Amino acid sequence: MSLSSKDLLAIKGMTADEITLILDTAATFKNVSERDIKKVPALRGKTVINLFYEASTRTRTSFELAGKRLSADVINISTSTSSVVKGETLLDTAQNLEAMKCEMIIVRHASSGAPEYLSKRLKSSVINAGDGFHEHPTQALLDMFTMREKLGSLAGKTVVIAGDIAHSRVARSNIHGLLTMGAKVRVCGPPTMMPTGIERLGATVYYDMDKAIEGVDAIMMLRLQLERQAAGLFPGVREYARLFGLNQARLKLAAKNALVMHPGPMNRGVEISSDVADGTPVILDQVTNGVAIRMAVMFLLSGGVKPEA
Amino acid sequence: MSLSSKDLLAIKGMTADEITLILDTAATFKNVSERDIKKVPALRGKTVINLFYEASTRTRTSFELAGKRLSADVINISTSTSSVVKGETLLDTAQNLEAMKCEMIIVRHASSGAPEYLSKRLKSSVINAGDGFHEHPTQALLDMFTMREKLGSLAGKTVVIAGDIAHSRVARSNIHGLLTMGAKVRVCGPPTMMPTGIERLGATVYYDMDKAIEGVDAIMMLRLQLERQAAGLFPGVREYARLFGLNQARLKLAAKNALVMHPGPMNRGVEISSDVADGTPVILDQVTNGVAIRMAVMFLLSGGVKPEA
Amino acid sequence: MSLSSKDLLAIKGMTADEITLILDTAATFKNVSERDIKKVPALRGKTVINLFYEASTRTRTSFELAGKRLSADVINISTSTSSVVKGETLLDTAQNLEAMKCEMIIVRHASSGAPEYLSKRLKSSVINAGDGFHEHPTQALLDMFTMREKLGSLAGKTVVIAGDIAHSRVARSNIHGLLTMGAKVRVCGPPTMMPTGIERLGATVYYDMDKAIEGVDAIMMLRLQLERQAAGLFPGVREYARLFGLNQARLKLAAKNALVMHPGPMNRGVEISSDVADGTPVILDQVTNGVAIRMAVMFLLSGGVKPEA
Repeated sequence: MSLSSKDLLAIKGMTADEITLILDTAATFKNVSERDIKKVPALRGKTVINLFYEASTRTRTSFELAGKRLSADVINISTSTSSVVKGETLLDTAQNLEAMKCEMIIVRHASSGAPEYLSKRLKSSVINAGDGFHEHPTQALLDMFTMREKLGSLAGKTVVIAGDIAHSRVARSNIHGLLTMGAKVRVCGPPTMMPTGIERLGATVYYDMDKAIEGVDAIMMLRLQLERQAAGLFPGVREYARLFGLNQARLKLAAKNALVMHPGPMNRGVEISSDVADGTPVILDQVTNGVAIRMAVMFLLSGGVKPEA
Repeated sequence: MSLSSKDLLAIKGMTADEITLILDTAATFKNVSERDIKKVPALRGKTVINLFYEASTRTRTSFELAGKRLSADVINISTSTSSVVKGETLLDTAQNLEAMKCEMIIVRHASSGAPEYLSKRLKSSVINAGDGFHEHPTQALLDMFTMREKLGSLAGKTVVIAGDIAHSRVARSNIHGLLTMGAKVRVCGPPTMMPTGIERLGATVYYDMDKAIEGVDAIMMLRLQLERQAAGLFPGVREYARLFGLNQARLKLAAKNALVMHPGPMNRGVEISSDVADGTPVILDQVTNGVAIRMAVMFLLSGGVKPEA
Repeated sequence: MSLSSKDLLAIKGMTADEITLILDTAATFKNVSERDIKKVPALRGKTVINLFYEASTRTRTSFELAGKRLSADVINISTSTSSVVKGETLLDTAQNLEAMKCEMIIVRHASSGAPEYLSKRLKSSVINAGDGFHEHPTQALLDMFTMREKLGSLAGKTVVIAGDIAHSRVARSNIHGLLTMGAKVRVCGPPTMMPTGIERLGATVYYDMDKAIEGVDAIMMLRLQLERQAAGLFPGVREYARLFGLNQARLKLAAKNALVMHPGPMNRGVEISSDVADGTPVILDQVTNGVAIRMAVMFLLSGGVKPEA
């Protein structure tokens, strides 16, 4: 089996089989990063371009490492050094890069839909590394990989996603993916941060964190964008932490051994207390699994077939 | 045959044989970027340094890819992260890099003559990636490569270069190269942007774009530096577009199938209309050929002999 | 013999045997950078991360080249592009990088002790690439390597370190290293730049540069941080140059063929006159040796045993 699209743009629209193919492939690649020589020749002589219009350490590094461990040549381009400053259009920039003959362009952009826009106009594979408030598909894949690894399967499990749901591409990708894989999804946050119509996606809305967390198998805390306070979306950091933050007392309401997850970077003391953050190994497992997921995605998009385990 | 100099600093002074050697070598390397595995071992274990004192996506990426496809180790240094900020002289910075044992330093600098200055004081090969208003030799080489590929040969062809001739290193390198290769060169732009004495180089000066474009085989539009408006060099973007921009009506005045070229990044709607830009495949061919030219230059400067086709 | 620690954090506390092991190993690696193919497979498939919270061309490039010549995958992260801007803690950033499975993290940080803090919490090897006013151990190792190479041995030699001793991690690392290796160390600078209690380390304090330099075998000039003037630590650049700068007249007071050294980047005409800087080949030898030292350190920390010469 292989992926039906040349691109990875969104979790919405993917089938459970496609998601499972990526997770299974990642499981075989996870082992590569544990080896003494963390390198396979799958993408040797291929060119992968990280085109990041928003700053990022973790995601850019994860993609860069994934590409290098597959033996690809990886080129990093970030806004500050790019000719975007000269007013070139996004499409012109991307077409120029493609004209240099690359197989894959990984795009992070503040505008929702930018990667899809490019994907229709490029022959290269486009991987969405986060676009506006739309999707961040590799993040959801690594989250689902991590939950599947720890919980055995996703079907029938209950997951709460808590925080600024309206502005979170991580939340959006996870809601689509988890529901497709048969999990139940709760979302929780202040009413100002809850998108209208979110129930129609299939998620259950909570405004009370204690109730939202009750009995869940996994808790995904979202990063609070502190600059939203100026926009009046939440009254203050302390009040936010008290109402929606995850602390030890609240964690006890979840199922025993519930997974505590965070896409990072964390605001310690805001959406997650430091003792909870340091008490869970899962947040760093997510990071480890991110490299495996990105290797799997690059491998499959380049025409690879899932290797036998 | 091999190149007579250890450096590539300017097109001025190069013989037709030397230019032809580079174009022929690039033709054999162009194929490498079309392969499934885009890599040859020619520069394995060599160190190539991109030392960019001016921002650039396209040129830096093109050199980086060229180096990596030749299997070199490529190091990127750009002003924002360099110790230039600490007030070190250009020569001290370059000598330090050379002391780390590199074979090639690719320099982009706002001062005309900076690469030549370094080349005389370094044992490494210096490649000029654009210096002030002086030259941008690899750009002219990729332009000539593209024209030769499309037009069969350069001798006897007529090329117009249009825009801010006075401040364009791209124009200067192309004028020297095209004349050396036997083409006829017209330059066209507002009088405020026309350098005095340009006729002595052998180019014919036009101030009327319609006349300049008449019957030409290739049109090279230069990027308008919008900040020149503040300096009073042109009255406004709309008027500039009307008088000197390339649009469909004007394009009809050129020879049938005339090549439309642009070194990028383009100001759509200023020096080139969007429909003309999107109607020509040549601008992206230039980008593709840029990687091949840079591979050829690096290969030849490192002592390589043109491979048999 | 191998190193006792998984990290290289400071020269203080290292034994003469450990320092000698690194210098001897570097001697065998120095040859690699002189070869036609400057690459050995020692760290193939390993991941080395340059995590730089302070700008640096020379040190970052030196580590990057060292890693690449050992065939490691090298990832560069600098403050301007890192998620530090998002307020993530240093430890969270480093643990995230480690979760991606890296063998080595090279840290430069404005806070003294930051690398040590990380080293205790990470399984990866941490290499201190300069922390606050504390230490810069690879700089001292390359300085000692250079002196040993030129002077035959360090034991019994007299070295003067001149400049802003109080704020210099280079001075601090060299004082510890040189004394451990049996050299005599003089320090010289304005009283405002002399740390209290420096004699207790074993160095002899001078405030008169002519006397400090008398008969020494090597002179290490420190870079004057020009911004210290605003803090009132020195009255003016000219007066500093006159009192503490190294010029030809003053150089004659040292032993015949005394080594003139500088960690760079130099302020020509301030702490060192241009003719003295250009008259010594040693300053660039230091840079050359820096790559060899960093290869040796990475090799030894990754479990390598000193190769036979």
